[in-house]
Amino acid sequence: MATLRVENPIVTLITDFGLTDEYVGVLKGVILSCNANIRLVDICHLVPPQDRTTATHLLTRSYSFFPCGSVHLVVVDPGVGTDRPILALQADGHFFVGPDNGIFTPILKNAHSLAVYRVTASELFLARMSSTFHGRDIMAPVAAQLANGLPIDRVGPRIAPEDCRLEGPHPCSEIGGVLQGEITHIDRFGNLCTNIYREDVQRFAHGKAIVVQMVEDDQLIIDSVCASYAEQTYKKIVALFDSHGYLEIAENMGSAAKRLKSAIGSTVSVLLK
Amino acid sequence: MATLRVENPIVTLITDFGLTDEYVGVLKGVILSCNANIRLVDICHLVPPQDRTTATHLLTRSYSFFPCGSVHLVVVDPGVGTDRPILALQADGHFFVGPDNGIFTPILKNAHSLAVYRVTASELFLARMSSTFHGRDIMAPVAAQLANGLPIDRVGPRIAPEDCRLEGPHPCSEIGGVLQGEITHIDRFGNLCTNIYREDVQRFAHGKAIVVQMVEDDQLIIDSVCASYAEQTYKKIVALFDSHGYLEIAENMGSAAKRLKSAIGSTVSVLLK
Amino acid sequence: MATLRVENPIVTLITDFGLTDEYVGVLKGVILSCNANIRLVDICHLVPPQDRTTATHLLTRSYSFFPCGSVHLVVVDPGVGTDRPILALQADGHFFVGPDNGIFTPILKNAHSLAVYRVTASELFLARMSSTFHGRDIMAPVAAQLANGLPIDRVGPRIAPEDCRLEGPHPCSEIGGVLQGEITHIDRFGNLCTNIYREDVQRFAHGKAIVVQMVEDDQLIIDSVCASYAEQTYKKIVALFDSHGYLEIAENMGSAAKRLKSAIGSTVSVLLK
Repeated sequence: MATLRVENPIVTLITDFGLTDEYVGVLKGVILSCNANIRLVDICHLVPPQDRTTATHLLTRSYSFFPCGSVHLVVVDPGVGTDRPILALQADGHFFVGPDNGIFTPILKNAHSLAVYRVTASELFLARMSSTFHGRDIMAPVAAQLANGLPIDRVGPRIAPEDCRLEGPHPCSEIGGVLQGEITHIDRFGNLCTNIYREDVQRFAHGKAIVVQMVEDDQLIIDSVCASYAEQTYKKIVALFDSHGYLEIAENMGSAAKRLKSAIGSTVSVLLK
Repeated sequence: MATLRVENPIVTLITDFGLTDEYVGVLKGVILSCNANIRLVDICHLVPPQDRTTATHLLTRSYSFFPCGSVHLVVVDPGVGTDRPILALQADGHFFVGPDNGIFTPILKNAHSLAVYRVTASELFLARMSSTFHGRDIMAPVAAQLANGLPIDRVGPRIAPEDCRLEGPHPCSEIGGVLQGEITHIDRFGNLCTNIYREDVQRFAHGKAIVVQMVEDDQLIIDSVCASYAEQTYKKIVALFDSHGYLEIAENMGSAAKRLKSAIGSTVSVLLK
Repeated sequence: MATLRVENPIVTLITDFGLTDEYVGVLKGVILSCNANIRLVDICHLVPPQDRTTATHLLTRSYSFFPCGSVHLVVVDPGVGTDRPILALQADGHFFVGPDNGIFTPILKNAHSLAVYRVTASELFLARMSSTFHGRDIMAPVAAQLANGLPIDRVGPRIAPEDCRLEGPHPCSEIGGVLQGEITHIDRFGNLCTNIYREDVQRFAHGKAIVVQMVEDDQLIIDSVCASYAEQTYKKIVALFDSHGYLEIAENMGSAAKRLKSAIGSTVSVLLK
């Protein structure tokens, strides 16, 4: 099959396979068997089992830092063995491979350029297929071939983005003079990540001063948004825009997650001062 | 020393070094100092300390997915500093390096083509040897040189496979009309892996219907073998053949390990219906 | 900018980013976007949050096993967003990049050849800077360019090593006829690592026999230093010189950390027998 030769192909990996089994290693073996020159980069293998929301969070906050042409393989696949489709996307210069279960929602909704394909070309798959490990048998070989330069229209028929499963956290929204979002992820440092984007806040505040309210922490008020963790007093709870531009609740030199009751899904509100 | 030039040499790693110390990084530094072009692939570093059974499980279920010529380095070495030998194997087109403590048993028993060497060529070792880290001082440099194309007979004398230490789980066996095996591994999803191979079941059942009995769970009966996790009712305990062809006990969208009492070593029986 | 072409550039990584977020993957994406041919080697990402002592321990025990010219990136940066400087070091043929917060103390003190630079050349940084992730925005691109062959004097002004922050564990010292050190790290196997170096002991003992005393374990006496874990009786507490030449307290086939009360910071004494 005719392929373009890619000089330093990259495949990134997000899975819920953990680090105690051989599954991640096997994926990599399949990919390197296709082309031993591929660079493999682990984004995360500790996605909680079958947790598509976390997979989406990690993917959308990482892929754009890789060179154009990179292939991003996401194997969080509770539907393995059913007839849920497998997708290959070309979006804004990157490739994505994974099951059609909502994990690609933000890319399907927000990409500037987008082409979506259903993966059906079985000649690309491993010869001996299982019904429990399509990551190994289908997705890894397809990702490797895309990294190799296989034109994406060879993986199967093009489909409309609307025909894919769309899910994921709601964007934040303004309700009764309050900009309301939620905690979408808690990182290793105990920082609470939200879905409230810097531009949402700017549009809401029109240059006026704001406060952040943690609804489930007895309406705790954080009375300004600071520029860095270290700008504030030691052990103070602060709000700031994280390195992706989203509002984050943190504790300077500590863990906000340990201090506060708020958890994933808890409401975070932005109010005018 | 004359070596063939290998274009994209691969070394895979299985250790019990964990992820909180510098040990894995040091192994990789030694290997890349020998040839910075080697591709390093982590299979697992969270093998429980000195647990040779898990190391063997992970090795035998991963190596064959890598390209021929790959070198598989296994450092689970409770006998470090004693005179237990270090082995280098060439088996079915792959290379293996590790201590002679039973970890290579299935390869020594089942390989179609096999040559076994005792590693003694000290000119291959790190110049400054320790008595506590032979993974770094002996095994890593030997693995790197094999990956580089060093002919394996340069590492030391060839020995008979029978002279190596053989261990590991018994294969499953038929006793009194019952095919009896055991749980050999529990994966991240709580799936219970067994040593009962698909062909053992086919030979036992002769096409008749079977049930699976979990002896230590009050003789729990699983009344059929299904094709995939998702085929069954939500949260139902199922038996299926895993992606390597071994019988596995799982819970659809849950953890069988949390639901059941059975653990590593527990008996799993297959009976005619 | 003129750079030498490096054939197989290596960047090693030590961070406190953990393995559950996208942060490590993002660092790697930034580095590979600079040069997709760079070999990335994880030393450790499970440094406890903001724990500079552990970062230093891991760095000083790993970097010298990599080829000369390797770049060692250390992102443990509690001061992110403040004006603490970022350093680039060339020391004994290796490069180092990280914040000026004491993590490089042993290299600054002990390197045979050393040049230290303050990283200020903002044209090397990511175009869109954050105030919370200088690892991504400044340190990763600078590390990548040094790996690429950028002359180190292009990163900013050269400064005196004395102008850097120096910290870290005290070296062991002789007090009243006792050589006194401390536990600096506990590894995955429960081995207690100390700052007592083999040559310190040799200088102290002048060839006489010694014993090791664990002060916080009711003055427990370990009556000799053995050569390997396995040399001693099963489950016996032993003292030995580890693979880096430092005195270590271990349990043969067990965990000294579980058996003993001594912890990081506890005193370990060497006495003449």
